Amino acid sequence: MKAFLECVPCILNQVIKILQKKVKNQKKRDKIMQAVLARLSKVSPSSMTPPDLTYVAHQALKEVLGDIDYYKEEKKESNREALKLLPKLPDSLHDALLLAIAGNIIDYGPEHEFDIKQTLKDILHKKLSKKHITALQEKLKQAKNLLYICDNAGEIVFDRLLIEYLKKNYNLNITVAVKSRPVLNDALLSDAKIAGMDKVAAVIESGSVTAGTNLESTDKNFRKIYDRADIIIAKGQGNFETLPHNQKTFFLLMIKCRHLALATGLKYGEVVLWKKS
Amino acid sequence: MKAFLECVPCILNQVIKILQKKVKNQKKRDKIMQAVLARLSKVSPSSMTPPDLTYVAHQALKEVLGDIDYYKEEKKESNREALKLLPKLPDSLHDALLLAIAGNIIDYGPEHEFDIKQTLKDILHKKLSKKHITALQEKLKQAKNLLYICDNAGEIVFDRLLIEYLKKNYNLNITVAVKSRPVLNDALLSDAKIAGMDKVAAVIESGSVTAGTNLESTDKNFRKIYDRADIIIAKGQGNFETLPHNQKTFFLLMIKCRHLALATGLKYGEVVLWKKS
Repeated sequence: MKAFLECVPCILNQVIKILQKKVKNQKKRDKIMQAVLARLSKVSPSSMTPPDLTYVAHQALKEVLGDIDYYKEEKKESNREALKLLPKLPDSLHDALLLAIAGNIIDYGPEHEFDIKQTLKDILHKKLSKKHITALQEKLKQAKNLLYICDNAGEIVFDRLLIEYLKKNYNLNITVAVKSRPVLNDALLSDAKIAGMDKVAAVIESGSVTAGTNLESTDKNFRKIYDRADIIIAKGQGNFETLPHNQKTFFLLMIKCRHLALATGLKYGEVVLWKKS
Repeated sequence: MKAFLECVPCILNQVIKILQKKVKNQKKRDKIMQAVLARLSKVSPSSMTPPDLTYVAHQALKEVLGDIDYYKEEKKESNREALKLLPKLPDSLHDALLLAIAGNIIDYGPEHEFDIKQTLKDILHKKLSKKHITALQEKLKQAKNLLYICDNAGEIVFDRLLIEYLKKNYNLNITVAVKSRPVLNDALLSDAKIAGMDKVAAVIESGSVTAGTNLESTDKNFRKIYDRADIIIAKGQGNFETLPHNQKTFFLLMIKCRHLALATGLKYGEVVLWKKS
């Protein structure tokens, strides 16, 4: 999925948030912003995915700030909060999927404990597409190898719940993939360990260094597992925007961008289990 | 007032709106966006005012699209709507100021007739700062020459009402200034004529080609009138961001930017009569 022109200001707003966190001096902030703009001016937005366009901006940041983890503290806090509020193993696939999406919503909303609790209650009233749930259930029964591609820290704690549900109810060889390098608040191997994901599945790094999964740049090992998988569950908007939409890939996300909503016909704010028809 | 880093994405969103109106081809939109980014990458945001930063972006647009009036139709429509809904001459300076600000709000809100009507009702319940009203009244009694610097088309119809009130109640030589070239939806000489402003005051072009008034680049004639004025009333956020804050200048605006609100201590969405203490 190609980036919209509107991705450019959106990415710059992300960059500004990082500059406000990590750079005190206004002149230095200006200089870095100018470097980011120069870098973005060299690429055509509609020729790449939104996460790849974000990566172009972040490369300019990295050259000045170094390859640091901008959201280290926030990720730690998200994991802590999520572990504290982790509900018991749900009874249905539908609810297990919804709880995994709740993690994706938490990333979006204000990080107050009250809101997370409320989100966890509210989410179970949502309805995922019956057609896609049925397709997923069929696929899960037949499949041998499942690849689960994670999105954010914190959220990964709820992903573990879904993995546990899948393990309990289906006969699957499950691999869980996380990012290889820090990208915004995306989950790393360390977050997977904090979430206890390594206790319930094989966890690998995808090789992806963008806020999605650009297959071209993933690790050989990940690519082998991706190709071998009978079924893929990919979390979050970044993966939805970057991974191929095919018959084996189910996307599980909240639509967090109005332009994406318009382009896909999905609703802004909607929680979605989606597979290409 | 210097631009915030956040002005950059905000300006790009304005640029995207213009591209969506004026350029059909996606590749061409991309190319123009890249040219705008390249131009912005060459200037330091915190070294110039927000309207001057906008001008830098618009120069790149102009080189490709020509020096066209992007909002010609919208301005015509705003004038038409405002003339249709123009209330009678108010009884107090306070209400005349509020109605002039109503014009500034209309620019911001959705352009439904119902909303404009509602805005005109609601505005008269607002309260402007007593301190500044008193200061303005004192100044108006003593002053000989008043310069009134306009903001948007449509809005200028309500400005005329304030000018009529000032003429009726004070002994003033009034000059009204509009923009010299199209900038977004800012009022031009043609809008002043449609509003009937030329029937109640001398109308001049300021020489400003930005969404504010950069004194350095104004016409000699405007500058003479600016220097000679005992009192200046400047409408809208662009003028607030560009003109010197001094003892003779009263700003009349709605605070339409959260970053400006934070920086000034004024409230976001507040309608303000403001003068340097």
